[in-house]
This record gives sequence, C-alpha cells and structure tokens, in this order.
Amino acid sequence: MAKLPLYATGIMGTFAILLMAAAGEEDALQKQAQQIFHPLPKDMATEEFPITRERVELGRSLFFDPRLTIDANMSCSSCHQPAFYGSDALPKPMGVKQRPHPRHVPTNLNAGTSFVIHWRGDRTNLEDQVFQALTSPITSGQPDEKAVIERLARIPGYAPLFKAAFPNEPQPMTLRNIAKAVGAYERTLVTPSPFDAYLAGNHAALPQAARAGLEKFINTGCIACHNGVGIGGGMYQKFGVVEDYWKVTGSDPIDKGRFDVTKDPDDLYVFRVASLRNVAMTPPYFHDGSVATLPEAVKVMARVQLGVTLNDADTLDIVAFLESLTGELPANFATAPVLPSGAAK
Amino acid sequence: MAKLPLYATGIMGTFAILLMAAAGEEDALQKQAQQIFHPLPKDMATEEFPITRERVELGRSLFFDPRLTIDANMSCSSCHQPAFYGSDALPKPMGVKQRPHPRHVPTNLNAGTSFVIHWRGDRTNLEDQVFQALTSPITSGQPDEKAVIERLARIPGYAPLFKAAFPNEPQPMTLRNIAKAVGAYERTLVTPSPFDAYLAGNHAALPQAARAGLEKFINTGCIACHNGVGIGGGMYQKFGVVEDYWKVTGSDPIDKGRFDVTKDPDDLYVFRVASLRNVAMTPPYFHDGSVATLPEAVKVMARVQLGVTLNDADTLDIVAFLESLTGELPANFATAPVLPSGAAK
Repeated sequence: MAKLPLYATGIMGTFAILLMAAAGEEDALQKQAQQIFHPLPKDMATEEFPITRERVELGRSLFFDPRLTIDANMSCSSCHQPAFYGSDALPKPMGVKQRPHPRHVPTNLNAGTSFVIHWRGDRTNLEDQVFQALTSPITSGQPDEKAVIERLARIPGYAPLFKAAFPNEPQPMTLRNIAKAVGAYERTLVTPSPFDAYLAGNHAALPQAARAGLEKFINTGCIACHNGVGIGGGMYQKFGVVEDYWKVTGSDPIDKGRFDVTKDPDDLYVFRVASLRNVAMTPPYFHDGSVATLPEAVKVMARVQLGVTLNDADTLDIVAFLESLTGELPANFATAPVLPSGAAK
Repeated sequence: MAKLPLYATGIMGTFAILLMAAAGEEDALQKQAQQIFHPLPKDMATEEFPITRERVELGRSLFFDPRLTIDANMSCSSCHQPAFYGSDALPKPMGVKQRPHPRHVPTNLNAGTSFVIHWRGDRTNLEDQVFQALTSPITSGQPDEKAVIERLARIPGYAPLFKAAFPNEPQPMTLRNIAKAVGAYERTLVTPSPFDAYLAGNHAALPQAARAGLEKFINTGCIACHNGVGIGGGMYQKFGVVEDYWKVTGSDPIDKGRFDVTKDPDDLYVFRVASLRNVAMTPPYFHDGSVATLPEAVKVMARVQLGVTLNDADTLDIVAFLESLTGELPANFATAPVLPSGAAK
C-alpha cells in the first residue's frame, strides 16, 4: 500500500469501520433470513408421490393436451400458461363452455411446496387437484372417468406412455394415474431465484434495494404468514385481520373463503396464504384478482393484515425484494412437448 | 480384396449390376423430385415484409399474448399450438365467447410459403391475416383498433418493444405494426425436414418406404397440385374434381369454398391447396377436419381428385413419404416467451 497522509488514513479507517459495521448488519440480515425462509429443493418428490422420468414425460404431455376436456380446447396449460409463469393474467379465468371459475389462477410453479392446494385448501395435494379437475364441470366438463379415458385411448401414442409410466399395472390408463403423472411433472417445476442464492450464502445475489426490502418485509411483519420454502403456502390465514378486505380491494362478490368448505365460523374469510415465489410475474393479485399491480397489492396487505400504512419508498423496496423471488422458467415447462398425434374427436 | 471362387464373383457381379440399376433409378427419382419440389428457404422474408430481430421479438410476444382479445383468454397460439405443430387437433376451433370458426386451423408453420392465406384465399398474406384477425368477431372479438391498443398500452413492457421494432415512427403501437411484427415472427417459422435433406442431395435422408411413397405420390398425380416449396400452398383447386367431396368425407355442412368469396361459378368448391409440410402432425384433415387420419385422407384425395382407388400398401408408402415432411419444431415456437408482465384488464 502506498503511503498516505495521516488525515487520509484516519478517514479511511472510519470508512472501513463503517463498512464492517454495515457488513455485520448485512450478515445478521442474511442469518435472520436463513432462519425464516428456506431455499427450494431440487424437486418436490415425496415418498407417496415419487418422480420418475416416464411419469414426468407422460404428465407433461397430459398437462399440455386439450383433448382430455369436453370440447377438446382447454388443457391445464390454458390457465397455467408458461408465458405467464403458470398463471393467466386474468382476475378469474373462464373454464370450458364459458363457465367462469370462481377464483384467480395460482401459478403451478413450485406448487408442490404448498401444504394444501387451491385458495380454500379444498385439494389435499397436486394429485388430488388434478384428479378432481379431470371431471370438474368448470375445468374439464367431462362427466366421468370413462369419457376422459375414451379420449386418450383413441390417440395411439398414449398407451405406450402409460405403460412405461406404470409398468406393473394391466390397465394403467386411469384418472388416478393421470393425476399421478401430471403431479409428478408438476413436482419437477421448481424455479430457484436470486433469493435462493442469497439464502445459500451468496450475499451479492440480491441488489441493495432488495436487501432493504427484505429487511422491511421482515420488520413489517409480513413473515408471520409468508415464510418457509414457499414464502407462503404453509398455512391458512384470514384475509382482513385488521380491516375487511373487500372495503380495500373492492372485491365483488365477497368470498367467504374456507368457511364455505368447513362451515366453521373460525374459517370466515380464511384462505390459504399464497406463495410469493414469482409473484412479480403473476398479476393480478389475491383470490379474486381484484388488485392489478404488485405495489398496490403490497400496500393492501400491509393495511388489512397488519394495520400498517406503507409509504411509497418502503413499498418499492419490498417490491424489489419480491422481484428477487422470480426464478427462471423451467425448460420442461417453457417448451411445449410435441403431443402424440391424433384428431381430438 | 481376398480371392473368391468363380461362382461367388459371378453372383457378386450380378448383385452389383442390380445395385447399380437400382441406384440409377433412385438417382432418377431424386432428380425428378428436385424438379417438382423445392427445399425450404432459411426464412420467408420478402422485400415488402422484412425480418428484423426486434420485429420478431415483439411479434413472438404478441403471438402468445391472450390479452389482445376481448376476454383476454385467447391468443394466436390458442389455435396455432406448438404442441400440435401450429394446429389444434380439432375439426374446427372455437373462437372467443364460444363463437365457432367455420373452418379447420391450418398450421402457421411455413405458412409464408403459401401464395394466399386461409382456405378460401381471402387473406393476401400473413400480415393481412393477422391484421384482419385482430378485430375479427370470432378470432378476437375486439370492436376496433382503439380497443386492442388500449390493452397493449396498459402493459408497460410493450411500448419499448414497439419502439425498438419500428424506430422511426412516433406512434408505433398500431394494428398495422402488430400485423407486421407477428408476420415477421411467423416468417421465421420454417421446419426443414428429412425430405429437404433428400432434395439437397442426401439420398439416405429418406427411408425406403418414403422413397417408394414419393414415387407413388408422383405417379398417382398428387403432384399436379402438391408441388413446389410447400408441397402445396401454391394454387387453388376444386375439392372433388372427380366426385363430390362431401359424399366421401361426410362433410356437413357443404362448404362452397371460394365461390362464397368471389361469387364466380368457376370457384364453386374451390379451396387453396393445402401445404403437406408437417401433415402427419396436424390431423384431422381438410377444410372442415372431416377426416381423422392420414391414411384415410390420402385415400379420399386419390379418389375424389384423381379417380384412383389406392390399396393399403400404396397408401402406407405415400403416408411414409408424407411423414418425411415433418420437420423439427422451431425453437422460438416450441418455447413460449416470457410475456411483459401486467394484469389483462
């Protein structure tokens, strides 16, 4: 090091101490974050729902195939669009035959990290969701298992795919197996983000605004619900703890949430807490898509859940943090498979 | 070469002569094919419709974006699905608000090689097709340019894409420019196939059955209409030259084809000849999707256009040739773009 005048070393010393103090605070923030959140696993397989290459291949085709539904013009990917990070940019989607879905499309990316599925938690896991969707009047329109299987059976390319995915079953083409295969595919759809790199120890993976936002996200109290591997998706919570949500979101109709499933008064206006992974890519927001932009959604949540009025600067920092939860689209989702060839009907 | 007994060299000589004769015939077939058909160009740019990187990027996003249409739930890719090689597996698709389209979806792959667009030729080129589709009651449902542009203008990410694609225009966000951008994108969607390799001189690119089928395709007379770069797509022709088409296809209703556009009696039952590129991947067949499988479609065409009854063996050879027209899906079509983020409405 070149020799410096005394006053300069003094200034640099002060600067170095400040830097060290800042670094210490940053380390503390990172450690705190590591206790609250968890990085994504490499996939979402479980003992009950294993992932095999053959199930994923079959499930991926089925996910993109509209020939299963009543008019053969809607697939899982009609609402869970790759181009919109597994959502559809609509407040609420239209199902088959112009039948409206009652709630907003949550992304299917990382959905296997969620403790239950659907806004009201009335699907126990991904496989249950797929299974019920296959004969749902809104999602599929097909009356029963026979109708769905007939569609698949007339496409010659599917039989070998089912055989390969479920080699020990004499009749593998069933709704249960469709659900297992699509579930296996969806359990591969993880989107590691800059925030995961940060959690893994790479401090530089988050820009300064995102780190400031993370701190505010923690200190404002958002982490009471949005925590764990999904940054949400781990519990139920009332929407509108401090204030009725619809008075702030303008929601119409007013959705009673899980109450309509359980009839338990404690479940009035209760919803599954949404995962915030890829939230910047999946507007509009909330169970009814009633709020169009992320800054507005952040302010609404702070107000109705925590009684906090966020200013614009803090809101933008939190948005910067939320943007660090955007991962790369998985290649096997971004790219459509070439489907087994065959006329729909 | 090791020394061989006399009888063996005699047998081998005969075999060599037969091989040479066969090779001579194969060379003749290849030369004939090179006169009738042409390999795909690397793209389909013209002087009037140039391809620029910026236009393709914008056009690709617009192609996959449902937010342009009335209910924000149908995009170009809803009917021209990558997973079905740019078609949709349906006889006829449903448009917006359950309004039925009158005719089958032709693939948009290689569509820039076609001399006109749509089954009745009532769109002059890709750009004209896109332009008219943007306010078509069935395809889009949007009443006018203003309604479409309002949708785009509220998605912040689009303005810079339009600016980059049309840098010299003060107000580049117009229906004309949407059409030019989507057209530029579609003009990149070429699918070179094993048959193109064969035309370029690689004899081994076609398996034996496909070469036999090529010969039968030529000698049966299919090439009267299905020739050139698109193996079709270069002229109009009456559907049912020898026999009324609907008596064989079971078509209902009976489509009068180009007659309904021109009111010229010579145009009764006249349609644009379909390109056969990727035909094996795009069932069902004909302007109304009335025939489900390729072997059946080949037999119908031979019968109603040429008065020929094809046997099963010849049909399967021709199908093998048609399968050699399947190219690889272009990467910028198979993979969905990540769209500029923003709520639809």
